[in-house]
Amino acid sequence: MENRQIVVAELPKDELTSDHFAMRGVPMPVPGPGEVLLRTVLMSIDAANRSWMKGATYREAVNAGDPMPTYAVCEVVQSNSPKLNKGDLVAAESIWADYATCPAHKAQKLPDVRPVSNLLSVYGIAGKTAFHGLIGVGRPIAGETVLVSAAAGSVGGYVGQIAKALGCRVVGIAGGAEKCAWAVETLGFDACVDYRDPKMFKALKAACPDGVDVYFDNVGGTILETALFLMNERGRIVCCGAISQYDTAAPTGPRNLPGLVVVKRLRMEGFIVMDFADRDAMALRALRTWVESGRIKVFEDIVEGLENAPEALIGLLAGDNKGKRMVRVGPDP
Amino acid sequence: MENRQIVVAELPKDELTSDHFAMRGVPMPVPGPGEVLLRTVLMSIDAANRSWMKGATYREAVNAGDPMPTYAVCEVVQSNSPKLNKGDLVAAESIWADYATCPAHKAQKLPDVRPVSNLLSVYGIAGKTAFHGLIGVGRPIAGETVLVSAAAGSVGGYVGQIAKALGCRVVGIAGGAEKCAWAVETLGFDACVDYRDPKMFKALKAACPDGVDVYFDNVGGTILETALFLMNERGRIVCCGAISQYDTAAPTGPRNLPGLVVVKRLRMEGFIVMDFADRDAMALRALRTWVESGRIKVFEDIVEGLENAPEALIGLLAGDNKGKRMVRVGPDP
Repeated sequence: MENRQIVVAELPKDELTSDHFAMRGVPMPVPGPGEVLLRTVLMSIDAANRSWMKGATYREAVNAGDPMPTYAVCEVVQSNSPKLNKGDLVAAESIWADYATCPAHKAQKLPDVRPVSNLLSVYGIAGKTAFHGLIGVGRPIAGETVLVSAAAGSVGGYVGQIAKALGCRVVGIAGGAEKCAWAVETLGFDACVDYRDPKMFKALKAACPDGVDVYFDNVGGTILETALFLMNERGRIVCCGAISQYDTAAPTGPRNLPGLVVVKRLRMEGFIVMDFADRDAMALRALRTWVESGRIKVFEDIVEGLENAPEALIGLLAGDNKGKRMVRVGPDP
Repeated sequence: MENRQIVVAELPKDELTSDHFAMRGVPMPVPGPGEVLLRTVLMSIDAANRSWMKGATYREAVNAGDPMPTYAVCEVVQSNSPKLNKGDLVAAESIWADYATCPAHKAQKLPDVRPVSNLLSVYGIAGKTAFHGLIGVGRPIAGETVLVSAAAGSVGGYVGQIAKALGCRVVGIAGGAEKCAWAVETLGFDACVDYRDPKMFKALKAACPDGVDVYFDNVGGTILETALFLMNERGRIVCCGAISQYDTAAPTGPRNLPGLVVVKRLRMEGFIVMDFADRDAMALRALRTWVESGRIKVFEDIVEGLENAPEALIGLLAGDNKGKRMVRVGPDP
């Protein structure tokens, strides 16, 4: 059996390129006591991966020479623990590799959902992040206007569809006319504005005639600054990510902060999907209900082959995905 | 009877100077039906006054030629309304003037507290802002660390004293060694750091060995940016003002926003003291309890004479006050 790993050859100073990664052949790892050997099926590609390279966040920093960490869906191929059996499908904090080992207690057994990719998209990190951020932090109610950036991204597409299911007016922000049209025509957004449009502010204002009650922020930076001007009093800003800030050495801050937060009595609140683990069952039931009734459509952007993981991440940071991006390393079990 | 007004001669583009104001003699105003004639006793001087000159906020913008608006404590000298009587002491949104008129329903009758100045300090806008922001928005609990900027200012001094009364560790940020010493020795802060110290970050870190749970932000800008690095997970930032941003044409934004808000799951929330009017009675009872038991000391910074109001505001923006600044226009009734 062959095994390959992709390591971080060098930490990026600003823009991430394929030169920052290197693939190497490594021996098949041998699980120790209490560990399992995992075959990687699908790896989740997320903007947060880039932020891990900037230093410690909610997890340890990634250093040069380390295998690139990833959240992945894997099959257990050997188990030295009574907790898991050969053939189990698990989610784990793993690495960019064909095979890896992991303490059994750190791998989470997954339900038997097909296709397995749904466990990374609507029933996985993307759907759960959208659900918990919107429902748990933003708390919109029917009739309110919900604005979401990275609207064609993995999380943004579900945020908009959930908000529509709740009866909100939903406005997206995405890069390029094609993505904007897709958000409106396919995902059912009421409007979607291209952030590359020099008249973005005017277009957003027209798309939000009653202002914005909840802004689900995936990007930070100047788009956050723009959204602040459109917020209604008592508006809520769900701080989910800052993708515009990850791939640069010189991030800029919103100049109207905290001024507008005071004047408009805004609430800005950050969250990580794991914070809401105790409400995952509720989230999954709601998401399944909406998927089965056709209120939520599932879109996945699957890149084939471990060797293409660096380009999959670099492309994601440049916004070339529609829906949840993942890399298929091996077939569904 | 003489009457004088101070008008905004010209709107400031950046730093406010006395040239932006002009005093003029005007006729004694005559109250219309339903109006009262007010004699100004004390005018509240607040950093927010400066922000009113930057455009519409939570109130209408101030324009060149307008009398300078102010929150004031006044005596009713003539009433054309059954709601108020001659001799009543009221709080009103008024103007920088000896006398002014006001619709009776917009003037709020005040309790008989002496000295009257306490109605602008601990039992007025300063004490209530500190109470509602800290208790209603920040929600600290005994054992937590509370950091407050503009610690020697009207609001900051009460924030720190209330937090001490709740059993918190209290660290202030103020301008200059003398103010810092005053906050510690007189107000009872555990520590106070000079923001002019080039090693401010190091000093703050040493003063907050367990990190910061609640940051009461009166200033915004680079101090907010610094505080964000010290926040603990699930920390709360009370957005009360952005005094560092008011007197400049080119405000800067905290570059670590929203990144750290996401990673640390912070909540940033703005408020205006009027939002909590329904809890004012509770606030006043608590403040009185603490004042009477000696837990809270009252400090006031009273500038004598209407003609000195421009310098009182300009000086406040430069940080030359200790405690609540106000201008005495006439004697207590």
